[in-house]
Amino acid sequence: MSLLVTGSIGIDTVTTPYGVSENCIGGSAVYFSMAASFFCGVRFVGVVGSDCPFDLAEVFAARDVDLTGLEVRDSSKTFRWKGSYRDIMSDAVTDDVQLNVLAEAPPSVPAEYKDSKFVFLANTAPALQQQLLKQIKDPSFVAADTMNCWIENELDDLKVLLKEIDALIINAEEARQLAGENNLVKASELILDMGPGVVIVKKGESGSVMCTKDREKFILPAFPASVVKDPTGAGDSFAGGFMGYLAQKDKVDFDSLKTAIAYGTVVASFTIEGFSLKGLTSIKKADVDKRFEALRKLTRF
Amino acid sequence: MSLLVTGSIGIDTVTTPYGVSENCIGGSAVYFSMAASFFCGVRFVGVVGSDCPFDLAEVFAARDVDLTGLEVRDSSKTFRWKGSYRDIMSDAVTDDVQLNVLAEAPPSVPAEYKDSKFVFLANTAPALQQQLLKQIKDPSFVAADTMNCWIENELDDLKVLLKEIDALIINAEEARQLAGENNLVKASELILDMGPGVVIVKKGESGSVMCTKDREKFILPAFPASVVKDPTGAGDSFAGGFMGYLAQKDKVDFDSLKTAIAYGTVVASFTIEGFSLKGLTSIKKADVDKRFEALRKLTRF
Repeated sequence: MSLLVTGSIGIDTVTTPYGVSENCIGGSAVYFSMAASFFCGVRFVGVVGSDCPFDLAEVFAARDVDLTGLEVRDSSKTFRWKGSYRDIMSDAVTDDVQLNVLAEAPPSVPAEYKDSKFVFLANTAPALQQQLLKQIKDPSFVAADTMNCWIENELDDLKVLLKEIDALIINAEEARQLAGENNLVKASELILDMGPGVVIVKKGESGSVMCTKDREKFILPAFPASVVKDPTGAGDSFAGGFMGYLAQKDKVDFDSLKTAIAYGTVVASFTIEGFSLKGLTSIKKADVDKRFEALRKLTRF
Repeated sequence: MSLLVTGSIGIDTVTTPYGVSENCIGGSAVYFSMAASFFCGVRFVGVVGSDCPFDLAEVFAARDVDLTGLEVRDSSKTFRWKGSYRDIMSDAVTDDVQLNVLAEAPPSVPAEYKDSKFVFLANTAPALQQQLLKQIKDPSFVAADTMNCWIENELDDLKVLLKEIDALIINAEEARQLAGENNLVKASELILDMGPGVVIVKKGESGSVMCTKDREKFILPAFPASVVKDPTGAGDSFAGGFMGYLAQKDKVDFDSLKTAIAYGTVVASFTIEGFSLKGLTSIKKADVDKRFEALRKLTRF
C-alpha cells in the first residue's frame, strides 16, 4: 500500500565520541525513507535549496523511493543542523541550526501522491503538518511526530492536528510535557484523549511504549546495541520501519502495530551503528529480519 | 531450596509527590524478604539497635521468614535513611543517612543457616559481604548488590568479591562506573570478565538487562505502572523476587533466570505502588502470578 512521508532533508554535522561527520546527509524524511524502503515503496515530499550538495536520486538509487515530491528551490538554502552527543549519548546537544528553506512555505504534494493511504508527517510546525495532510484525499492511517518547541509555542495548532491523525510518535520528555504528567502510562492515556487512536512513546535506549484507544498496551526494549556511533535519525528510522511494515501489510490491527514497533526498533538499531545513513545503507532486508528474530528471542520468557 | 539474605533493616523517612512516610520500616533485607517470601522460605540475617520500633516477627507474621538471624544489639542504634523523590521519581535524593549499627561489626550467620544454598548479599561494604559469605558452607548460587561508594572506595575488595559470587545485580550507572564503559552491553561484558557468571543491570523504569558468561542476553522492560507512590525498595524487591523464584525452582539455567527476572520485575512493580511495605503486604501470590502473565502479554510480539 502507498506510503508518503513529508519531512526534512538536512546537511548535518555530528560529533560523537566516535568522531565527527561533517556536512553529511540527514533530515527526518531521508532517514524515514531509507528505513521504510526495506518494506515498501516510499513517496517522498521535501524541499532543499539550490546549495544542496547531495543527489538524492543517487542516495536512494538502490531503494524504491519516488522523488517526484522533491523540490529544489532556487535562491533558497538547505536546512543545516550541527549537533553533538556526549557520554552515554542519549541526548543530542544542538550546537547550531539554520532552518533556511524549512522556514519558508512547505513543498506541495504532487497530484500523483494524493491517493496515498499511509502518511507520515515528520516533525515540523503543526500548522504545516495540517496543510500537508489536507492535500491527501482519503488516507487510511496517518502518523505524526512533534517536538517540545511546538508543544510550547503552537499548542492550539498541535491540538487540532491531534484530532486529524491516527498515531502520534513522540519522545518521552515531550509526552510528559504535552500531557502535563510525569507518569508515562498516564501521559499516554491523556494524549489518547486528545485525539489519536495510538500513542507511541520513544524512550531512546530504553525502548518504547505503545498505548491505544482500546487501552491495549505494548512495551518493547531497544535492541541492546554494543556499538552506538551516532544516534542521529534513530527516531525517524523507527518511524520509517514502523510505517513501512504497516503499509506493506496494509493492516493496523494491534498485532500488526506490535510487529511494526519491533521492526521500527530493529531498523533504528542499525541506524545508530554508523554515522549518517551508513548503518542503513550497509545492510539488506535479510539483516533486518535476522535482528527482528534476535529481538524476539532476547525479550521472550 | 533454602534462601538466605543478609542486608539492612532501616527506619526510613521518605518524601515523594504523593506525601511523606515518616519513620517507616525499610532496609534491603526487609524488602528482599517480603518479596522472596512469595516464592519460598527466607532465612534472614540482619541487625538493629535496641531503639528499633518495629517488631519484625509481626512485620513478617503472614510470611515464611525465619528471624533466627536477626540480632538486636543493645546500646546500638538502628540504621536510618531519609530520602526524597521528585518529578519523574527515577532517583532518590538522600537527605540524611545515619549508618549507626551498620557501621559496626556485621551480625553472624546462625549455625542452622550455614547450609543455605541460595544466598543474597544485599549492598554493604564488599569486605563485609565476603565475611558473611565465608560463613556459608557450600552455597550453590550467590548473588550480590553493590553501589557507587564501594566502587569508588573499596574497589579491590569488590573485585575479590566478584570472583566469589555467581550473579551481580547492579544499577545502570554503577555498572558503567564499575566497568569504566558507558555502553551497557559492553559494560556488562566487562563485568562478566571480573568473575560473576551472570550480570543483571537494573534500569529503573526502563527495566533490566541480563548477560551471562555464555554471552546469552535477556532484556525486559519494567511493568508499566500508572501509580508510583514510592520507589524505595524496588531494587531489593526485584532481587527478592528473582532469588525467591530461583530458590523455589532450585534451578539456574537460562530459562529459569529469565523467568526469575520477570518475577523480580513484577514484584518490584507492586513495591512502588505504596509507601514502605504496603505495596507488598496488600497482595497475594495470585496477584503476582496474574501480573506476571500480563507482563508476558505486554511484551510479546
